[in-house]
Amino acid sequence: MAEKTLDNLFYDTLKDIYYAERKILKSLPKMARAAQSPELKAAFEKHKDQTEGQIERLQQVFDIIGKRAMGKTCEAIDGILAEGEEIMEEYEGAAALDAGLLAAAQAVEHYEITRYGTLKRWATVMGLNDAAALLDETLQEESQTDEDLTGIADTAVNAEAMKTAA
Amino acid sequence: MAEKTLDNLFYDTLKDIYYAERKILKSLPKMARAAQSPELKAAFEKHKDQTEGQIERLQQVFDIIGKRAMGKTCEAIDGILAEGEEIMEEYEGAAALDAGLLAAAQAVEHYEITRYGTLKRWATVMGLNDAAALLDETLQEESQTDEDLTGIADTAVNAEAMKTAA
Repeated sequence: MAEKTLDNLFYDTLKDIYYAERKILKSLPKMARAAQSPELKAAFEKHKDQTEGQIERLQQVFDIIGKRAMGKTCEAIDGILAEGEEIMEEYEGAAALDAGLLAAAQAVEHYEITRYGTLKRWATVMGLNDAAALLDETLQEESQTDEDLTGIADTAVNAEAMKTAA
Repeated sequence: MAEKTLDNLFYDTLKDIYYAERKILKSLPKMARAAQSPELKAAFEKHKDQTEGQIERLQQVFDIIGKRAMGKTCEAIDGILAEGEEIMEEYEGAAALDAGLLAAAQAVEHYEITRYGTLKRWATVMGLNDAAALLDETLQEESQTDEDLTGIADTAVNAEAMKTAA
């Protein structure tokens, strides 16, 4: 067996996040439909458009390392999205639904932030500067999305969730 | 059915992270044994001690809201830890093992960061100031651990992973 190096790990992790991004892309319209506040709906729709661009950037990174773009089951994102689904079912019609959706979306963002942070660092170590720049572009977008979601949580959603006490 | 409010969501999410912390506590000794660099081994051991304190803080938060401390299966952390297990198997003995372990550990940290950030925000909205302070204490520890892991990645591990090319 050949010694596994950072090249292997980079490629494996790229496949992991490629699978994750495509699952997220499918899940965002559902989250946008479920969201009650127009602000949160709009945030999910905007992030759907961004995710399409992020998938294209990943395809460019696969090109840079001369490998075919393909996904590899990512149990982490499956688990994170399953928790989001559970929130949508258990809190359907409830005042706290949006707060729960926001928490689920921020868990998704943090998963992406850690993965892109790692991939960017590895690309830099490997001297893949163009790949590092593409990964950094997405990392900045994900961090901004997380901040935007925090802003929505602070202003609208949590107060609404408190309003209707049981 | 009673209208589900932020109280319910707070309690559900507390159970989620309580389950997660206890799974992480079990997994850290295994990660410490697997790690090759003494620096990374020490970081995992230190985080194990911290995790014990974080579990105690969660028990205090359960007390504050007058509920019994109990876990609820958290598919997200199950998925994240399963990816870590996969790294340990697939990269056993490989130069890139520590880089992979670091990436897995940072995914765990980011999950905790997002959950504690959310719980702290909700505790504040609900006027549970003592709970918010406890949750913030853990949030600061998790953020510091994530930074420490990034430091280890930048100095030792990634360079080592590059050394032995296939």
